Amino acid sequence: MNMVKVNSASAAIAFGALLFVPAAFAADDPLPSWNDGASKQAIVDFVTAVTTEGGADFVPAGDRIATFDNDGTLWVEQPIYVQLAFALDEVKAMAPQHPEWKDTEPFKSVLAGDISGVAASGKEGLEKIIAVTHSGMTTDQFDQTVSAWIATAKNPKTGRLHTEDIYTPMVEVIDYLKANDFDVYIVSGGGIEFMRPWTLKTYGIPPENVIGSSIKLKYEVTDAGPVLMREPEIDFIDDGPGKPVGIQKFIGKRPIAAFGNSDGDFQMLQWTTNAPGKRLGMIVHHDDAVREFAYDRDSHIGKLDKALDAAPKEGWHLISMKDDWKQIFPTP
Amino acid sequence: MNMVKVNSASAAIAFGALLFVPAAFAADDPLPSWNDGASKQAIVDFVTAVTTEGGADFVPAGDRIATFDNDGTLWVEQPIYVQLAFALDEVKAMAPQHPEWKDTEPFKSVLAGDISGVAASGKEGLEKIIAVTHSGMTTDQFDQTVSAWIATAKNPKTGRLHTEDIYTPMVEVIDYLKANDFDVYIVSGGGIEFMRPWTLKTYGIPPENVIGSSIKLKYEVTDAGPVLMREPEIDFIDDGPGKPVGIQKFIGKRPIAAFGNSDGDFQMLQWTTNAPGKRLGMIVHHDDAVREFAYDRDSHIGKLDKALDAAPKEGWHLISMKDDWKQIFPTP
Repeated sequence: MNMVKVNSASAAIAFGALLFVPAAFAADDPLPSWNDGASKQAIVDFVTAVTTEGGADFVPAGDRIATFDNDGTLWVEQPIYVQLAFALDEVKAMAPQHPEWKDTEPFKSVLAGDISGVAASGKEGLEKIIAVTHSGMTTDQFDQTVSAWIATAKNPKTGRLHTEDIYTPMVEVIDYLKANDFDVYIVSGGGIEFMRPWTLKTYGIPPENVIGSSIKLKYEVTDAGPVLMREPEIDFIDDGPGKPVGIQKFIGKRPIAAFGNSDGDFQMLQWTTNAPGKRLGMIVHHDDAVREFAYDRDSHIGKLDKALDAAPKEGWHLISMKDDWKQIFPTP
Repeated sequence: MNMVKVNSASAAIAFGALLFVPAAFAADDPLPSWNDGASKQAIVDFVTAVTTEGGADFVPAGDRIATFDNDGTLWVEQPIYVQLAFALDEVKAMAPQHPEWKDTEPFKSVLAGDISGVAASGKEGLEKIIAVTHSGMTTDQFDQTVSAWIATAKNPKTGRLHTEDIYTPMVEVIDYLKANDFDVYIVSGGGIEFMRPWTLKTYGIPPENVIGSSIKLKYEVTDAGPVLMREPEIDFIDDGPGKPVGIQKFIGKRPIAAFGNSDGDFQMLQWTTNAPGKRLGMIVHHDDAVREFAYDRDSHIGKLDKALDAAPKEGWHLISMKDDWKQIFPTP
């Protein structure tokens, strides 16, 4: 800076300008919650490559498709999947209308708060819980029930609302991709209509960009007008090999970037990255026992084993929550 | 106009300005192929109402969902559905690899060009034709086959390419809605992957905004990399009561405007218009035997009977191709 004689007013302005420099730098960084390092660099390099017109890796805007798993990739999935917590709470809320549940598994265990009892009821028990809590109502009624629950339900371990139990660095990636004309989708094993009521407000992703597991719907005309009834029958499981199927079904285009955290995302990552052109596959690795949870190969929830082994060979980047993320959760 | 003394240069400019007036008017009219009348007025009034901020009928941009049937609503469906023409042509193209078809129905009739023989083979015959022509290949291969076929296939009655056998007035409605921040979807009984290869270029509607009938897909990893195989099993029929189901499944929002032409669109129209707020339901009525085809209640293709009866009571507007459309097809 050249030394010039200034009056006090212009000195104050110059001093003010200096004060604002860091803020200006922060605003220029699309990923402020990420530490500098290989993961952040991989994201920035990828976006730069596919958006540079005339470059070898340029991808036109309409083909910039990015997919994100939800549980464990965008929000906390421990100690139990949020949707299971919803189902258990719903059983409790519905119990007064079902006195027989006091003596019938798996409801008896749910009402007693006995999670190991619920687990002991196995897949069949879980299906019964999902059936009574997720079907037999209209799509509008289910939307209202989910919306009311998600507005107040908290993670028992973190104490945060589930919609605040989200990974700020990943939301920054979503925003960064959207700012670069990507179409961003959630591709989750979770229920499509369990996610749609809150994803726009929470992640900036609208209902039509949410892909998930679904049950059959049935169109019925009632005295109050037409409704879509939620039937107790699986329509589609959007997990594992179902993820590329769901992507093709809903989008009809192959993603160029995919983000997951578990073996359920293996095929989505494989489908995304095993194709010509520049591709990005990333895995959120839960290795921060202090700020979040540390789990991978041996976890019942969000098991990451096969995809962890395949990552180096497939060129998938591991995101270390511990090392790569300056901040994990939104500032309260 | 005031009479003023002008030099010849400014007179030429003024004369030029007069010449350009009609062009300027045309540019301001979002629906130039429509005759003035109740149908055009209904569209303009609806769009004005839902986009007027502060107005009683205002709908925010993200909730402005409009759905269009395809066959008979956006393009010609006579003398046979375009997708059936594709399937029949594919049988002929595949015949050299299937010498047994010469003696097996329904293929024998297809190869002999005997449409009544094909019809006589019934639903079972049609399913066989669809199975061999629509499954057993990857999604990429099917995309390529459809793209190659649609580039040259013509309607035997109109002599036009199918992608030029489209209704210009309806494309104007799509453009008009998009210009007013509507999200526009095709919701067709036709195959989703039969439509996606050409809808962007033909109607300006991208693959992810195409909803249709589908067969099951299966993710497989081959030596050449992962593929999605098209399986010979129905996944979803997007017709009749399936249309509201498909809309909810793919979009997760209820349309505020719907356009159809047959009884297969009845439930989509019903679902769209039987809800609070300003709604628009319109039916393209094929009543122009001279410029297109005239058919409704008694047609095997695009049968319009129940929805024609219901239209006045439901407030659905009938679009008369004969009276409402100045021009039907694109200018060659």
